[in-house]
Amino acid sequence: MERIDYIDEWNIAENYFSEESLGKLEVNMAMGNGYLGVRNCHEESYVTEKRNMFVAGIFNKFSKKEVTELANMPDISKISVWLNGKRLTLNRGRVTQYRRVFNYRNGESVRSFIWESETGFSVRFIFKKFVSMYNKHLIVTEMTAENLGKQATMAVQSGIDGTFTNTGSQHFEEGEKRYLDNQFLYLQTQTTEKKTKVALATCHKLNKAHQTEPSMKRRQLYENKEFDLLENETVTFTKYSLLKTGQDLEYTGKDYLRQGLIDELNSITRERYRDLLSASATVWEKIWEESKTEIRGDTQDALLLNAARYHLHIMTPVHDNRLNISGKGLSGEGYKGHTFWDTEIFILPYFVYTFPHWAKSLVTYRLKGLGAAKENADLKGYSGALYPWESAWLSDGEVTPKFGGIDVVSGKRREVLTGKIEHHITGDVIYGLMQYLKATNDIEMKKNAFSLLMETAIFWTSRVNYNKQLDRYEILDVIGPDEYKEHVNNNAYTNYLAKYNLDVALRAYAESKNIELKNKYKNQFNIIKEIANKLYLPVPNKEGILPQDDNYLKKQMIDLTKYFEAEEVNLNNSYFSLKHVPTA
Amino acid sequence: MERIDYIDEWNIAENYFSEESLGKLEVNMAMGNGYLGVRNCHEESYVTEKRNMFVAGIFNKFSKKEVTELANMPDISKISVWLNGKRLTLNRGRVTQYRRVFNYRNGESVRSFIWESETGFSVRFIFKKFVSMYNKHLIVTEMTAENLGKQATMAVQSGIDGTFTNTGSQHFEEGEKRYLDNQFLYLQTQTTEKKTKVALATCHKLNKAHQTEPSMKRRQLYENKEFDLLENETVTFTKYSLLKTGQDLEYTGKDYLRQGLIDELNSITRERYRDLLSASATVWEKIWEESKTEIRGDTQDALLLNAARYHLHIMTPVHDNRLNISGKGLSGEGYKGHTFWDTEIFILPYFVYTFPHWAKSLVTYRLKGLGAAKENADLKGYSGALYPWESAWLSDGEVTPKFGGIDVVSGKRREVLTGKIEHHITGDVIYGLMQYLKATNDIEMKKNAFSLLMETAIFWTSRVNYNKQLDRYEILDVIGPDEYKEHVNNNAYTNYLAKYNLDVALRAYAESKNIELKNKYKNQFNIIKEIANKLYLPVPNKEGILPQDDNYLKKQMIDLTKYFEAEEVNLNNSYFSLKHVPTA
Repeated sequence: MERIDYIDEWNIAENYFSEESLGKLEVNMAMGNGYLGVRNCHEESYVTEKRNMFVAGIFNKFSKKEVTELANMPDISKISVWLNGKRLTLNRGRVTQYRRVFNYRNGESVRSFIWESETGFSVRFIFKKFVSMYNKHLIVTEMTAENLGKQATMAVQSGIDGTFTNTGSQHFEEGEKRYLDNQFLYLQTQTTEKKTKVALATCHKLNKAHQTEPSMKRRQLYENKEFDLLENETVTFTKYSLLKTGQDLEYTGKDYLRQGLIDELNSITRERYRDLLSASATVWEKIWEESKTEIRGDTQDALLLNAARYHLHIMTPVHDNRLNISGKGLSGEGYKGHTFWDTEIFILPYFVYTFPHWAKSLVTYRLKGLGAAKENADLKGYSGALYPWESAWLSDGEVTPKFGGIDVVSGKRREVLTGKIEHHITGDVIYGLMQYLKATNDIEMKKNAFSLLMETAIFWTSRVNYNKQLDRYEILDVIGPDEYKEHVNNNAYTNYLAKYNLDVALRAYAESKNIELKNKYKNQFNIIKEIANKLYLPVPNKEGILPQDDNYLKKQMIDLTKYFEAEEVNLNNSYFSLKHVPTA
Repeated sequence: MERIDYIDEWNIAENYFSEESLGKLEVNMAMGNGYLGVRNCHEESYVTEKRNMFVAGIFNKFSKKEVTELANMPDISKISVWLNGKRLTLNRGRVTQYRRVFNYRNGESVRSFIWESETGFSVRFIFKKFVSMYNKHLIVTEMTAENLGKQATMAVQSGIDGTFTNTGSQHFEEGEKRYLDNQFLYLQTQTTEKKTKVALATCHKLNKAHQTEPSMKRRQLYENKEFDLLENETVTFTKYSLLKTGQDLEYTGKDYLRQGLIDELNSITRERYRDLLSASATVWEKIWEESKTEIRGDTQDALLLNAARYHLHIMTPVHDNRLNISGKGLSGEGYKGHTFWDTEIFILPYFVYTFPHWAKSLVTYRLKGLGAAKENADLKGYSGALYPWESAWLSDGEVTPKFGGIDVVSGKRREVLTGKIEHHITGDVIYGLMQYLKATNDIEMKKNAFSLLMETAIFWTSRVNYNKQLDRYEILDVIGPDEYKEHVNNNAYTNYLAKYNLDVALRAYAESKNIELKNKYKNQFNIIKEIANKLYLPVPNKEGILPQDDNYLKKQMIDLTKYFEAEEVNLNNSYFSLKHVPTA
């Protein structure tokens, strides 16, 4: 049996439980709404799980030696269940009819199975959950348990668990734990470095008389519910959770968190799971309406396209233009939640041509980052504005780690040079901005972008070297976008992007009617022009190859195929079709 | 089948695997040597495990809002095993002949079982391990795998994992990870607040040709070994680990850690498991020789006594008199590793009468704490020396948390008053000291203790209140040792201990020949004498009851039995035989 079924153009199914590769579907079936993202972990715990929830823009540094990263939130996704004292786990007992279906159209995950224990009971479980697109702070899970066997005592423990970390690094204080009105679990905490407030409130509803007891441990607060699941009985347990932070644009003071959160949760818990899902699905429908896409005759392609679009929407924090897209979206710890050139080059085009106001938010983030980019240029000895290779919070500046992993053989730390010399990011930012302006003719943004165009052009004027012999400007010692080789000269991509940056600045200057601003950049105009005219742009050679840098064609050829033989990779199906790639 | 077998007076056995109550035997079968302590977790991971390792005296504060606590070390106890790609877990496949035997005589844990997977192989595993009493930095685990079925590919991942926390609070920086000489895994880290250095080195030996690859992830470094386990073949995998810190008395500078650790490990790995165990067992044998104990006719009682003695020895950091015993030994996070009056009242007597030099170390800790006790008295508005209710590192002073858990009903934090008013600790310290001096006649210690006796007596003179009407001194507003009621007056235990403290100070003064020191305390002598004479000592009433405080007999009686009915506790077998206890 295949693990994955492509059901139709919106639905994917997992056909059996696989503890050894939980991560794959935790990410592919991740849930979110741009404000927050939750990996699709099973409610019950497994040692191989990676339980992560992130809120866009909640960055923190564990120690001075580390760079800032998206902080893994206190968890609300875990629900522990016992039947006659046996903890529910798909590793024990007999599991049949397992299926998890993820719907990319409305973001709902539905998992069902029958669990028969060693001690003889049999219960069908259905776990449904979604993160709301309608209320960006809301996460809802509904568990249904249908007794197919004899009466059994069922116990459920659920709540808020603040023991989770970023692979061992804890970003939150223990915080304040409350059990309010005998039904609301409330945790208010703050990040250790930035002291950003984060509050979570959770409430459970169970459609049957039962015993409830709260319990608190270090960093954890739970409600424990117990009842008898009668023969043929079906019960429904619903977990409603809200999360808000002191960094939210709507933050109005302390009542925005505690009392505000509890009041809102109180009103939400009067609604049924399906109605809350429906409100969220309506928002999704509008998105799909606005960007109709059809692939005829190939369901799998259509599904994959929809899955990709779904992920673009759940990873993009359009609600707050102080934020941008994370390298791994809001679905994992990788890339620490930092923003790279991927936003402009790979993601922005989708939004520019389908949801220009989403694109606007992403472009605005770069506009707001101009001050930090100027500081960054200054710090690194350049003029104008140099965008950080990795960005986090707007004022953080360059957040690329200075050192990567240890080289296993030499035992030495590898220096990460991307933050130092991968400068095409600045050209990428301008390229993205121009794509947006071309598509939208957003006059307001055009005006605001003038300084950005000039300052980035000025950066390139300070970045180039004049080659007297050839009477041309060159860009030396960079990392190109393929990142194979460090310290290369005249990387074609970088030089062309720099040229583009210089040209659009000149054009903007020529077109601008803002005398005051023009005066400010008057002195630089000629320098920009001079360099734009004489910037070296490598051209294709006789064989039609545009070498990616000065030394590219001098490198020794190696046969790449040998690296793939062992794994029998069919190169024709891989993303590149080169038979030979150069190496040092 | 009972879970526990009492095999003989030194050995206890677990007869089946119980994921729901791992903690019980993680603690009862905990391993250690006073320098470090490791919970007896299974090598393979379970979601219900609590993987802890502590080193005596390595305290750290996660945040300013918390008190200092013993920091959970990077883990070396975990070993992951795969057979034909299936991860070893006792939750899956068929497990037979499971048995874990713990030997309190030599501290060795031996676990064996046959694991047959769903996919058809069958392997007998034996895991043996111990923490060395001979080399206090050494932990050794030996895994034997015997193939009872068909050939299978076996993979083992083992190393050092720094992702573990104190229930979510991380006390260590990520640290420096190294793989040296293609065989030594090395992690050097430091605590976040105190910057105390901690280094771990691990090396694996496998008695069969195999493939090895190192791997590193955030806070983790492993060796991955893979080989074919042939039919009828038995392989042995040994994991040697050393742990040292910058706080060790032997610390001589940076070579004490990295190079020193690797050199030592290199030499240790030439020895076999059984020889290293034997060196450790020899130290244990000396201990049992020195304190022969025999209970005839009741194996279980003898076993329990030996288990208790074993735990006393593994929890007592006799190697370093700057350290004392933790509330939960080195076997868990409870009580945060702090030292309480339990040392003097419950544990010291054992050492005083069997291992006086161990007792000396514990008494010396209190002697060294005199400065902090004087500061503590001063801080709280008293004269002399007031010992902290909870102690950690000598200079930390009072480390009792100011607030406990949240009251579930009121939602308010409960103030912890023990640090404020549970003052009998000072009398307990003196009581312990005197027990030691009486038993040993340690002249040196007696001399050194003079100031301690005087300063603690002076504390009591500042602590009492004079009752003019009755012409007596009273001790008001304390918590007695039973901790039932806060803010009581003239707690009998406290008053008698204070009287004892005053008396021994007077006697020491009278006996001392140190004119200089006597002059120092000359002025206080008469005050101490006056108060010793007139300190109120409650006496038993007509019914022979010595009331534990002034209001004790005025409290309303309640029938305690009703609290126990539900759980059918036989009061005759419980630790107290009162039928009624008073309440507020």
